[in-house]
Amino acid sequence: MDSYLIQVNGKASLPCLRDVHVCLHGKSPSSGTTKGRKPHWAVRASEMSKRTFNPIRAIVDSMKVAPNPQKPLISLSIGDPTVFGNLPTDEEVMRAVKEALDTGSYNGYAPSVGYLSCREVVADYHSCPEAPLEAQDVILTSGCSQAIELALAVLANPGQNILVPRPGFSLYKTLALSMGIEVKFYNLLPEKSWEIDLKQMESLVDDKTACLIVNNPSNPCGSVFSKTHLQKIVAVASRQCVPILADEIYAEMVFEDCKYEALAKVSANVPVLSCGGLAKRWLVPGWRMGWILIHDRRDIFGKEIRDGLLRLSQRILGPCTVVQGALGGILRRTSSEFYHNTLSFLKSNADLCYSALSAVCGLKPIQPSGAMYLMVGIQMENFPEFENDVEFTERLIAEQSVFCLPATCFEYPNFFRVVITVPADMMMEACQRIQQFCEQHYQGGEGAQELECDK
Amino acid sequence: MDSYLIQVNGKASLPCLRDVHVCLHGKSPSSGTTKGRKPHWAVRASEMSKRTFNPIRAIVDSMKVAPNPQKPLISLSIGDPTVFGNLPTDEEVMRAVKEALDTGSYNGYAPSVGYLSCREVVADYHSCPEAPLEAQDVILTSGCSQAIELALAVLANPGQNILVPRPGFSLYKTLALSMGIEVKFYNLLPEKSWEIDLKQMESLVDDKTACLIVNNPSNPCGSVFSKTHLQKIVAVASRQCVPILADEIYAEMVFEDCKYEALAKVSANVPVLSCGGLAKRWLVPGWRMGWILIHDRRDIFGKEIRDGLLRLSQRILGPCTVVQGALGGILRRTSSEFYHNTLSFLKSNADLCYSALSAVCGLKPIQPSGAMYLMVGIQMENFPEFENDVEFTERLIAEQSVFCLPATCFEYPNFFRVVITVPADMMMEACQRIQQFCEQHYQGGEGAQELECDK
Repeated sequence: MDSYLIQVNGKASLPCLRDVHVCLHGKSPSSGTTKGRKPHWAVRASEMSKRTFNPIRAIVDSMKVAPNPQKPLISLSIGDPTVFGNLPTDEEVMRAVKEALDTGSYNGYAPSVGYLSCREVVADYHSCPEAPLEAQDVILTSGCSQAIELALAVLANPGQNILVPRPGFSLYKTLALSMGIEVKFYNLLPEKSWEIDLKQMESLVDDKTACLIVNNPSNPCGSVFSKTHLQKIVAVASRQCVPILADEIYAEMVFEDCKYEALAKVSANVPVLSCGGLAKRWLVPGWRMGWILIHDRRDIFGKEIRDGLLRLSQRILGPCTVVQGALGGILRRTSSEFYHNTLSFLKSNADLCYSALSAVCGLKPIQPSGAMYLMVGIQMENFPEFENDVEFTERLIAEQSVFCLPATCFEYPNFFRVVITVPADMMMEACQRIQQFCEQHYQGGEGAQELECDK
Repeated sequence: MDSYLIQVNGKASLPCLRDVHVCLHGKSPSSGTTKGRKPHWAVRASEMSKRTFNPIRAIVDSMKVAPNPQKPLISLSIGDPTVFGNLPTDEEVMRAVKEALDTGSYNGYAPSVGYLSCREVVADYHSCPEAPLEAQDVILTSGCSQAIELALAVLANPGQNILVPRPGFSLYKTLALSMGIEVKFYNLLPEKSWEIDLKQMESLVDDKTACLIVNNPSNPCGSVFSKTHLQKIVAVASRQCVPILADEIYAEMVFEDCKYEALAKVSANVPVLSCGGLAKRWLVPGWRMGWILIHDRRDIFGKEIRDGLLRLSQRILGPCTVVQGALGGILRRTSSEFYHNTLSFLKSNADLCYSALSAVCGLKPIQPSGAMYLMVGIQMENFPEFENDVEFTERLIAEQSVFCLPATCFEYPNFFRVVITVPADMMMEACQRIQQFCEQHYQGGEGAQELECDK
């Protein structure tokens, strides 16, 4: 500290001089704190936290509209099948958790990748001759979200890029940007039931491309790729030597006339990290039980990627052990009837919604084949009052108390997404209100007579 | 693609020329893939995954010794109270989970920071006049590990540093290094019941210091800071304007003659992120239920840090909803008897171990006051056969089938850590074997007679 001498004239009995402290505000620029320099409070949120955001949350928060108080709100927005209580999980699922709890054996720390026996159960459940799996190929995670997070975190460095579908689930971008990884969008083609524009996808690959994300069945489209199309996707990845992260959280959730193929089954050469979990098929998204299935028949991931996943899993140590302990019961004992009933219900809601909205002027729904969603195209030129899908859906809430997510949330303007898990009567009511809304706002445009809606 | 013209002499009926594809190996160095250049497979694990490691796992894996087959293995190494079944959780805890399950209301997606009602429960439980809390001050996380992860992730940027105790829990370093954050160690003083060397700690602060981690009660020491000492810690943080991450996973787990103080209670000025959870006090570490309590009475964190935490929580959406739903029952209905019995048991094991090992030549245990551990100093000069604590504990396994973690795992060589949750008879047996081991290896050194162990 600096010292100053103060001369005092007068009596000798004055108290001794003391050092005079000079206080300067602001932190010391050099390392170490210089005495006498007083730091000040300046706590800033990290760059990573600022880069992390949920675009759906941001868009929804900006839609600051109150629903029409005269009509009860019908929310077709949240991809959560449990919201209205019409899709409870299977009794066996509940029973399995209680049994696991009662053993008292699932309260301690599991290995960070999950209990071996539980990984075995998941491996057995998914294994097939074309894509065999053992316990060591399975990592249990806190939800499919963490499975995707770990997969991206092991495959990509900041500054690399990943290929993601558009329209597509927003979490891929949220996680990637959070981690400093860039995102390149490949297009899905609505006129081809949302198949991938393969040529355009391939053109995006560069030497910084770390992985390709394929989501099948799709959120938000509800589309299901044929085996042929999956083979073509894999052919691109094979040609370009890009590994695949397959988001298969909706695995097996396909309607009657359709067949689900795990991507790994058609991929002899391309290594695949298949991400899945209990959330959707077993209707318990809040339980946070997911998994990564490592398909690596050509040893391209090798020990390095597996080791990387193990290390990353050690950060927060995996999913709730009681739910892990229930996995055996859940995967083995849930009745086929339960799966069938869920899909029948979804299929009938999909048909109801598709038929109803097909008859609405200005809208063009795309028939889904699985998952829990349906995308509806808006002929924006016939709704000149609305700038875009966000405004369209905003007014739909305000006038008709129906809430659908604008597909801008999925990087696909001029569409909106309908969630088809709601009770059938609610779905019907919602479609009627959407029709009313469109009738009130539809405008034929120039030469109105020819462009009158002829539906 | 390049085209080559091939001239063919002869009949006009020959088929048309086709383009000749020239294939070159290796990926294109420029952005975009040049047609005809064939990429090759080269999938590398990310830098972050390589930076992420659990040092305990690494050390333990390197101790490739088999226990003595003639003596059953006694493991005093894992900080998991459930391992031997002698410390079951309370009946009320199990009941609360079953009740939550049966409502069917806790299966869907919760807000990423946790259900509001559950956050209220946690806030109520911890709130006190000196450090009041509301639901908005609470974030529910997948275990205390995720609480610490989120807290670090919001407070620090890569290149900044955090201050952590030595000896101390290795996860702080694992998470920090994973995120590119540097770690500076401040010393705990064994001769002062592991109080912090405050002067040395303060000297570490520089302008890149993002936060100070304080773990009380301590793993691995089992020490508990007095209120006075906590005030001094806070005074340093206040002077240096450094926020505190308080790892309080062992909150309230103090033996009879001791009192636990939440750090936030003594911190009027310094903002604190207090991390805790169900793991230890309720004996269910596998359930992955943790929380961050935001103490920010001077609005230093402000909206920015809270918003940052919210954003980060949106990556993988928080803990298992069924366990969230059980929090009310768990926090409100667990009997005081349960807490008391757990602590009595730990205390008696601590006393047993401390007494037994105090009588062992060459060892110097430090009496714990809480948590689940005890640190034992090794007078390495009296064990010349062993290079360090790692070798000491390795030989202890090989000869006596007793497994204690070398405190190198906690950045504190020449000590080992005993876990005091094991059944009492096992603890006794283990101490006897440790004594035998030391007697067999203890050497008085030069001038043996004076340095003979006089215990």
